[in-house]
Amino acid sequence: MSKVHNFSAGPSILNQEVINQASKAVANFNNLNLSILEISHRSKDFVAVMDNAVALVKEILNVPEGYSVLFLQGGASTGFLKTILNFMNENGTGAYLNTGAWSKKALKEAEKLGKLNVIASSEDKNFNYIPKGYTLPSDVDYFHITTNNTIFGTQIKDIPTQDNTLLIADMSSDIFSRKINVSDYAMIYAGAQKNLGPAGTTLYIVKDDLLGKTDRTIPTMLDLRTHAAKGSMFNTPPVYPIYVSMLTLEWLKANGGIEWIEKVNQEKADLIYNEIDSNPLFEGTAAKEDRSNMNVTFVLTNEDIKEDFDALWKTAGISGINGHRDVGGYRASIYNAMPIESIQVLVNTMKQLANKYDLVNN
Amino acid sequence: MSKVHNFSAGPSILNQEVINQASKAVANFNNLNLSILEISHRSKDFVAVMDNAVALVKEILNVPEGYSVLFLQGGASTGFLKTILNFMNENGTGAYLNTGAWSKKALKEAEKLGKLNVIASSEDKNFNYIPKGYTLPSDVDYFHITTNNTIFGTQIKDIPTQDNTLLIADMSSDIFSRKINVSDYAMIYAGAQKNLGPAGTTLYIVKDDLLGKTDRTIPTMLDLRTHAAKGSMFNTPPVYPIYVSMLTLEWLKANGGIEWIEKVNQEKADLIYNEIDSNPLFEGTAAKEDRSNMNVTFVLTNEDIKEDFDALWKTAGISGINGHRDVGGYRASIYNAMPIESIQVLVNTMKQLANKYDLVNN
Repeated sequence: MSKVHNFSAGPSILNQEVINQASKAVANFNNLNLSILEISHRSKDFVAVMDNAVALVKEILNVPEGYSVLFLQGGASTGFLKTILNFMNENGTGAYLNTGAWSKKALKEAEKLGKLNVIASSEDKNFNYIPKGYTLPSDVDYFHITTNNTIFGTQIKDIPTQDNTLLIADMSSDIFSRKINVSDYAMIYAGAQKNLGPAGTTLYIVKDDLLGKTDRTIPTMLDLRTHAAKGSMFNTPPVYPIYVSMLTLEWLKANGGIEWIEKVNQEKADLIYNEIDSNPLFEGTAAKEDRSNMNVTFVLTNEDIKEDFDALWKTAGISGINGHRDVGGYRASIYNAMPIESIQVLVNTMKQLANKYDLVNN
Repeated sequence: MSKVHNFSAGPSILNQEVINQASKAVANFNNLNLSILEISHRSKDFVAVMDNAVALVKEILNVPEGYSVLFLQGGASTGFLKTILNFMNENGTGAYLNTGAWSKKALKEAEKLGKLNVIASSEDKNFNYIPKGYTLPSDVDYFHITTNNTIFGTQIKDIPTQDNTLLIADMSSDIFSRKINVSDYAMIYAGAQKNLGPAGTTLYIVKDDLLGKTDRTIPTMLDLRTHAAKGSMFNTPPVYPIYVSMLTLEWLKANGGIEWIEKVNQEKADLIYNEIDSNPLFEGTAAKEDRSNMNVTFVLTNEDIKEDFDALWKTAGISGINGHRDVGGYRASIYNAMPIESIQVLVNTMKQLANKYDLVNN
């Protein structure tokens, strides 16, 4: 049986060569006759993995001097908390752009543990667009954005920057998908399980000299200085998720890095959005100018043919395209590792559906 | 080349069948033609893994009703913090038994975030014994113990229990190695990477009706109620470490569970401790009555023959027995998955060394 076309929103598709290598390393890592699962994180073989993963992040994203690159645990949900503890004073304010379910979780945590200022929100239209034209705050401890909204299929195209306002971004679902200017950010964090690796590690890129400035007592494990000082080895790191992330970064670099993947991602997104826009049976749910190049959300214009469409894509070997319950319809997640061929298969089923519908109705 | 005899202190040896299965699942999980690394944690295939892992913990440890079994992230180091936030009031006191480097980290966090009462300590003798004869506290929020001290090779044999004192235990390095009475504990937590699986998940067994009783504002991700309410699926769990833990629990159950492994572990420990005690070239570092059945720490009685011994065990295919810098000498970690045959190989090198030394000196 052939490989499935895996449009899962996350944990999500990984490159096949990465998977092959990852499987091999579980059986026998670096010809040590040991599994990567059973070696010490202090062994020279794993230290090399960690060093390489960090170096690849720095190289691929062109991370400037003065930033630490960390591979931690806890998911982006713990990133919401680390943002507050490391950057918000006891009586400070966190400013947030509310663009979806995950921003909302991030800002609710700020409300719980400090003061919250929601600068703008697209909740009025079920988060189907990115707010614009708002004034950036200056009297706040930081401004937090979610660059890509996995559930609603929107993505911030113009990053809102301003001198003297620390910008913090949850990039869980679009990191490594396009060029970014790391020096615009005080901190970037991202759960691995979309563009980086399997679930179980979270990447932090943080400007060192901004840490330790708040008046909070920060618990040891939530203080980013703890991990920056020990190169993510203060305690046992999630060895295997970091290893697979390293493999993915090697794959990305070998193929041409961000410049290459950004172009490929645009081609992939164009292919499916063009079909959505030209096929009368489908409709995109996100505002056109804010459409995500990672998560493509769409609905049928006629719910009566849902069964037909579902049968078509299932037969074609497609999985993971049911929409999130908050939006309904379909969501095709087309992360870095998704080959354009798989998107073509999906587009073909959309065309097939239109042909079938034409035949019946004309 | 044959398999290495892996005495690593953690991440540490896993059963070979578990490793084979774990490698296969990365290539193709459940014949889905997808890697376990790239499927949704909400997919029925992974939900079944999580359910099975939880059920196996409950069955193997005979967990009573009213306890939640959780697979979370952050390591036992985050468990130190979760202990405090979930069980210590703002003006409350955490009582600790100080038996090694990890207890010390746990109690330092309590000192940082609340009030600390160190009930007894073995730091006076570099933690080479377990304090006894102390009076259990009653006017504290909980009493925290570390059941096995990985670095110093000691293990609490008699668990100190008392009605009306909540007992919380870090069992990272001896969970699943011997019978325990879960109902003695308010909470048990354990990093997976010794007896359970690879690094990247931490097991919590917590009595539900004791949660939510403190006056602290608990951040969402550190509140155990968050995870208990969602069956460890509040956010994306560390899918693969949980899967490999499930495989290990299946292996343990299939072989006879705790009753079986406790007996095997005793035989394994006896084999090496008997050699240490009868071989004039070696000396154990831990008090005999407190010796760990998981981590066997020993030194050479004559440092001049260190090179000879190191050459012998290296030639025999042994790895990971260098002692921790806080103790020096050697440490043989003989966790559940360590076969007695590997311990025999180590014992043989110790005998060889004695023979060689006899020949030279007599």
